[in-house]
Amino acid sequence: MNEAELNFEVARLGACRIPSPMGSIQFVEDDEHVLYHTSLKEIKACECAGREPPGFEIAGPRREIFFDPSKLKCGIVTCGGLCPGLNDVIRSIVLSLHHHYGVQTVFGFPYGFEGLTYRYGHRPLELSPETVRDIHMKGGTILGSSRGPQDVLEMVDTLDRMNIGILFTIGGDGTLKGALAISEEIAKRNLKIAVVGIPKTIDNDISYMDRSFGFTTAVSEARTSIYAASTEALGARNGIGLVKLMGRESGFIAAYATLATSEVNFCLVPEVHFTLEGFMETLRERILKRRHAVIVVAEGAGQELMAETSGTDASGNVRFGDIGTFLRDRIKEYFGKAGMELNLKYIDPSYTIRSKSATTQDSVFCLLLGHNAVHAAMSGRTGMVVGFWNEEFTHVPIRLAVSKRKRIDPNGKLWDYVLAATGQPRNMA
Amino acid sequence: MNEAELNFEVARLGACRIPSPMGSIQFVEDDEHVLYHTSLKEIKACECAGREPPGFEIAGPRREIFFDPSKLKCGIVTCGGLCPGLNDVIRSIVLSLHHHYGVQTVFGFPYGFEGLTYRYGHRPLELSPETVRDIHMKGGTILGSSRGPQDVLEMVDTLDRMNIGILFTIGGDGTLKGALAISEEIAKRNLKIAVVGIPKTIDNDISYMDRSFGFTTAVSEARTSIYAASTEALGARNGIGLVKLMGRESGFIAAYATLATSEVNFCLVPEVHFTLEGFMETLRERILKRRHAVIVVAEGAGQELMAETSGTDASGNVRFGDIGTFLRDRIKEYFGKAGMELNLKYIDPSYTIRSKSATTQDSVFCLLLGHNAVHAAMSGRTGMVVGFWNEEFTHVPIRLAVSKRKRIDPNGKLWDYVLAATGQPRNMA
Amino acid sequence: MNEAELNFEVARLGACRIPSPMGSIQFVEDDEHVLYHTSLKEIKACECAGREPPGFEIAGPRREIFFDPSKLKCGIVTCGGLCPGLNDVIRSIVLSLHHHYGVQTVFGFPYGFEGLTYRYGHRPLELSPETVRDIHMKGGTILGSSRGPQDVLEMVDTLDRMNIGILFTIGGDGTLKGALAISEEIAKRNLKIAVVGIPKTIDNDISYMDRSFGFTTAVSEARTSIYAASTEALGARNGIGLVKLMGRESGFIAAYATLATSEVNFCLVPEVHFTLEGFMETLRERILKRRHAVIVVAEGAGQELMAETSGTDASGNVRFGDIGTFLRDRIKEYFGKAGMELNLKYIDPSYTIRSKSATTQDSVFCLLLGHNAVHAAMSGRTGMVVGFWNEEFTHVPIRLAVSKRKRIDPNGKLWDYVLAATGQPRNMA
Amino acid sequence: MNEAELNFEVARLGACRIPSPMGSIQFVEDDEHVLYHTSLKEIKACECAGREPPGFEIAGPRREIFFDPSKLKCGIVTCGGLCPGLNDVIRSIVLSLHHHYGVQTVFGFPYGFEGLTYRYGHRPLELSPETVRDIHMKGGTILGSSRGPQDVLEMVDTLDRMNIGILFTIGGDGTLKGALAISEEIAKRNLKIAVVGIPKTIDNDISYMDRSFGFTTAVSEARTSIYAASTEALGARNGIGLVKLMGRESGFIAAYATLATSEVNFCLVPEVHFTLEGFMETLRERILKRRHAVIVVAEGAGQELMAETSGTDASGNVRFGDIGTFLRDRIKEYFGKAGMELNLKYIDPSYTIRSKSATTQDSVFCLLLGHNAVHAAMSGRTGMVVGFWNEEFTHVPIRLAVSKRKRIDPNGKLWDYVLAATGQPRNMA
Repeated sequence: MNEAELNFEVARLGACRIPSPMGSIQFVEDDEHVLYHTSLKEIKACECAGREPPGFEIAGPRREIFFDPSKLKCGIVTCGGLCPGLNDVIRSIVLSLHHHYGVQTVFGFPYGFEGLTYRYGHRPLELSPETVRDIHMKGGTILGSSRGPQDVLEMVDTLDRMNIGILFTIGGDGTLKGALAISEEIAKRNLKIAVVGIPKTIDNDISYMDRSFGFTTAVSEARTSIYAASTEALGARNGIGLVKLMGRESGFIAAYATLATSEVNFCLVPEVHFTLEGFMETLRERILKRRHAVIVVAEGAGQELMAETSGTDASGNVRFGDIGTFLRDRIKEYFGKAGMELNLKYIDPSYTIRSKSATTQDSVFCLLLGHNAVHAAMSGRTGMVVGFWNEEFTHVPIRLAVSKRKRIDPNGKLWDYVLAATGQPRNMA
Repeated sequence: MNEAELNFEVARLGACRIPSPMGSIQFVEDDEHVLYHTSLKEIKACECAGREPPGFEIAGPRREIFFDPSKLKCGIVTCGGLCPGLNDVIRSIVLSLHHHYGVQTVFGFPYGFEGLTYRYGHRPLELSPETVRDIHMKGGTILGSSRGPQDVLEMVDTLDRMNIGILFTIGGDGTLKGALAISEEIAKRNLKIAVVGIPKTIDNDISYMDRSFGFTTAVSEARTSIYAASTEALGARNGIGLVKLMGRESGFIAAYATLATSEVNFCLVPEVHFTLEGFMETLRERILKRRHAVIVVAEGAGQELMAETSGTDASGNVRFGDIGTFLRDRIKEYFGKAGMELNLKYIDPSYTIRSKSATTQDSVFCLLLGHNAVHAAMSGRTGMVVGFWNEEFTHVPIRLAVSKRKRIDPNGKLWDYVLAATGQPRNMA
Repeated sequence: MNEAELNFEVARLGACRIPSPMGSIQFVEDDEHVLYHTSLKEIKACECAGREPPGFEIAGPRREIFFDPSKLKCGIVTCGGLCPGLNDVIRSIVLSLHHHYGVQTVFGFPYGFEGLTYRYGHRPLELSPETVRDIHMKGGTILGSSRGPQDVLEMVDTLDRMNIGILFTIGGDGTLKGALAISEEIAKRNLKIAVVGIPKTIDNDISYMDRSFGFTTAVSEARTSIYAASTEALGARNGIGLVKLMGRESGFIAAYATLATSEVNFCLVPEVHFTLEGFMETLRERILKRRHAVIVVAEGAGQELMAETSGTDASGNVRFGDIGTFLRDRIKEYFGKAGMELNLKYIDPSYTIRSKSATTQDSVFCLLLGHNAVHAAMSGRTGMVVGFWNEEFTHVPIRLAVSKRKRIDPNGKLWDYVLAATGQPRNMA
Repeated sequence: MNEAELNFEVARLGACRIPSPMGSIQFVEDDEHVLYHTSLKEIKACECAGREPPGFEIAGPRREIFFDPSKLKCGIVTCGGLCPGLNDVIRSIVLSLHHHYGVQTVFGFPYGFEGLTYRYGHRPLELSPETVRDIHMKGGTILGSSRGPQDVLEMVDTLDRMNIGILFTIGGDGTLKGALAISEEIAKRNLKIAVVGIPKTIDNDISYMDRSFGFTTAVSEARTSIYAASTEALGARNGIGLVKLMGRESGFIAAYATLATSEVNFCLVPEVHFTLEGFMETLRERILKRRHAVIVVAEGAGQELMAETSGTDASGNVRFGDIGTFLRDRIKEYFGKAGMELNLKYIDPSYTIRSKSATTQDSVFCLLLGHNAVHAAMSGRTGMVVGFWNEEFTHVPIRLAVSKRKRIDPNGKLWDYVLAATGQPRNMA
């Protein structure tokens, strides 16, 4: 998809005629946009091509809203794997609905989309300022989660029958696609239900967003594991500390954790290919020269090296080969054949990382994501997610958000920084 | 100063004729800029006024450099109060000079500008990759610091006599002005010495920078104090937890720490005026209704309420009245007169906050600030600081950076978020 | 009081005839004791004097209990200042009553002894396993606290009227004396109400207990402040970091925090006298030699140096002069007169420390204190606290526990360790 | 071995004739002992049997010492797996030798016993107060470590040739046996070299010691993993969090971590047998009733369930079957067969735990272990380790320390506490 085809337009349920109950606040006007491009050259290219330079609607409270708060019921679901900040987002949505708009009824649907499907028999939780008071102190999600799609017709039936006006969906790519399908079915039935998402990807790989919640916390926790690996590597002759980090399609966590510690000698990510031979040879040289090494590998790296990869999980994601244990075994084998002693320690901190509560910065980010999701939904926006671009919260059509993934550019600055920090060669193929 | 008068031009020592020793890296071209404005409306206004929309030079390694690394000596000073990340920045500069350019000699001048002045007799430290290996694990600065200006002529004498080619200055507003004076004296003497700064302000109040290092760590630590205050406030009848945070001219730390905890009922910042009467009355109502309250006050807030303010410190900063103890005493007095029992606990965590080591995100940020300062200086840029704008590292002329302070806009979004999070009235005058 | 007069006997409400509902557990027999003395010499001295060597009853579940769980109502109060672990103890008592004995009704009386006094109108909270589930994650006390005594008759009226069978009191010296008075009034009225205390003193100064809960957490947090002070001291010429820690009568926190960091040069405690002149002179020498110093002072140290000390607080504790700010001002004055530059940073982390949640070890300790308090009370013990001696939980009569305070012996090993770690002279008088 | 055969006598190199250089300190007399028994009943049993009740020599500085500090050279080795506090102990030994006795030369032998063996060519590090200043901030060991024995004759040759007077060995069971062999060879050659150990076992399973260093830190870190497991378990339907913790022969870490969190439903340790059927059935009931479960398993638990166990590692320890992955696979299999959905998350934090720096309490403990090891060695004690018993540091002959392991008594209090905290049945066989 080239830029000219990008659609930045956000769908709406209808005209906003109800004055916002928020008092003396700075309302955002509907024509406020933040530029998609950041350089003059790009702007001019648009103008030359006869197009307006594209931009995102700026998020925030609107002067007039679509829903009547006194009659509104809302629902929240959390889907997919755990991610730091889930409870912060739930809490922020509940508090904003309650305190900013006076909405009385908010349901939490348990275990993701399962909670919207009658066959599972999960009973919705009533969420009030009281019940969410301290939930941000804990990791995970108080609603529980599940993977995989559910029947769209059935889910819309549930929303309709329960008289839900807004559904907030917090989840990743699969969830957003589900949310899109729900909003399309809603449109087909001509219901007045807004579907607003908050994109969840600990890997930070959603396009058109500078940052996704939980990512900062994940990098922070990953640092802890890298310190452990480094300590182990230094604690024994020919010590190797090998850490597997999250990152199926993109290696942002691995890259930033590498920059955060300056103790990593090899950072392997899905975006940059390497061969076993190339990697092993470089590793061997490093060990001969320095007697220890720290390796960070993103879970999606080197998938092509493993024949046995196959199948998909309940969310429809390709099931990945385990590059962590694969590398661990290959390294041992290689050094064994070379007759070199080796002390390899393998660390896989994924579950520990994703179940953490949010660090300070993620807490702030989640709070504002939640507020802006509420503002967007109250104004009748639907089929959209809340984004963040050039320091502004934005409205992003789901279709745009799921159109492609954000990935590390192997020829870009971030990867140059990583190479500079690790000293690893650009090419290990 | 209006926009038309802003000068985004960065000074240079001369032409770059030496090929960079950095191998297969993405070099930045000198004409790459990031737009200062982020909305189409602003861009068009420039164009209508017949001006090119302004932008910052993008930082990064240049294909050709000014200095011959094999003959180059560099110096580093840290000035002013402690700030998380100082050691990270020192370390990053040393490692980049050494590993990226092969510079062999880097001096650390002890105790800020004092270290450049002979009368103090401080001996410079030699900084190598070995000596800086683990310094980022510790807070503070291994170089020591001091406040206040020193004789510019004498400092330039020192640089000249020691044959220093690049001076890196890490410090706040006063330090930058000192660095500017040094670079002007250098120009007057027609010396080939680059002066490149890394702006240090834990308060995050440098203009033309989206973020300054140490700020994220400070907010993170401030959250800890607010949790303590909240716990104390809930632990006794009519409990009040009062926390004084850093922020002389701007209340960013107080504001973000408020958003990060959602336990603050009153956030007082320098940018928003209040009267004692207005504040006390609102506080009393809160206590009557909820029996506890958490108050966060930035050190520069409410200065006009204290008659005794006067004098300046060694750096020439106005000496502030202590708003923390002032408020503590006034609140006790007010409730005493009203015959209401009160359990007020006062927390002033400033020294604990600023002496912390950097959190993960600040560590990454410091690393990249250091690298980009080195790249800029190696290319002969001078009289500039490294900035950060729209997710890009930039070159900012010192003159522009010190022209005004960044402050919270009381009519802007950030303050609206704070009001939404605390529930405090917009007006307590 | 000499040893021969010590009374280790614990009072009981009556015979235990109800079989414990705890299944296949190791019951403790009533004649199991742990020796008070730990050396053979002391044991033999007792025997020579014709006395049985004294010992404490070992705590734990009894085969027969006094109360019928199905009819029992219990109450809990927390009194005095905050201390890490309060919520852990509350939680442990509730869970043990519920799960081990099947007790259905447990009340939390709000705000300490106030909650037992009708004039305040505080309504008791019902505490169930559900309500206490996560409270140990947070510092403070969910019940709130207050200082000072209340009318004993009125409090016993409340217990009687509400049909409370066991009152658990968690508090310090004053609270224990109050609990003793309550148990005496109960005895006078011939009621069957057990009063069992869990001694709370963050200072670790209860006699006949090797450790009190919260102390380990406090030392841990104090270490953080000392690191900050040390960083500040190193960050400036003639830098001094001064930290005031808790410890009114005894300096255990200051002493252990000193041992935990190895960065303290002066540790000042109530048990060891010093003169201002002696201290200042030693400090001056240190600064001249090393250019920085870290000082830790317990709040009860050097009280005799301050004339203005006077009055008592609501709990009847002597109101202390503030040795922290006193020393800060005297040091500045002294160095000012001596014409020496000084950079003194003063840190008072008390409220931050005492409001923390418990560290791991304190969590375990609180859990077991709570369990053993429940076992003791169910067996009809009264007028006692749960102690800890030679790795065993014990029953200690309140009268014995409050008879004197535990203090650092200036001629003992702990103080020798401190002197060895700081290098400070034994005598600064 | 029954008690009567225990030998509490510590070997000495010879008479102490040199006055200690430690000034006005409380010296410990050679006849000061702490009783091995803690109850009167046990004491009387000894007396009845005509034996003196046994006790440990109390550690501490002696008035006269054996070695002349001005001529003394010392060496330190760290062996076996990493353990929090290793650097603290190294640091404490170096500082005590230097500051308390004025010893100038301390060598660190790299990579454990390898460093004493010439074939490896490891060069000893010189350790001074300056080089060890901050090492306690980092986990691991600055000396590096290795597993397995080395040639005793060769090691004693090295000590003799380098004129080492004291060798400090920090390691576990295997290391202590090595140290014993070294001290016996020294005696055979009639050399005057003291060998003093500091027992290192993160599992806390050394007999005749109430606590070993690193254990408290390990429990603390284990709590973090259990919280993660609990969060994951609650985040999905039929969620199971399974955590494998250290503990080959004894389950103290698993037991205390269980008590520290109160979120564990099954704690499996080597001392308590269970069958797969018994465990699975109980787990299934729990899941049906509560829909989630948290399981903690010590690495040595359930070894008899795995047929494939075999072999030994370089230290001669039996190579264990991996009970963690074994249980993980069996549970999945069992629930799969039963047609129950399951969300099992497996966490193995071992390397992260053991590479941590010491928590506050372990730091204090390591400091005092180091000091007392130095005092013991300076007095010519040899073939011994420093122990801790009834709140006193002690001298323990190596032979006694390695005679048997400390283990959880399945009929004792600790296990009762664990059962009470988890609610798991006593018998899952």
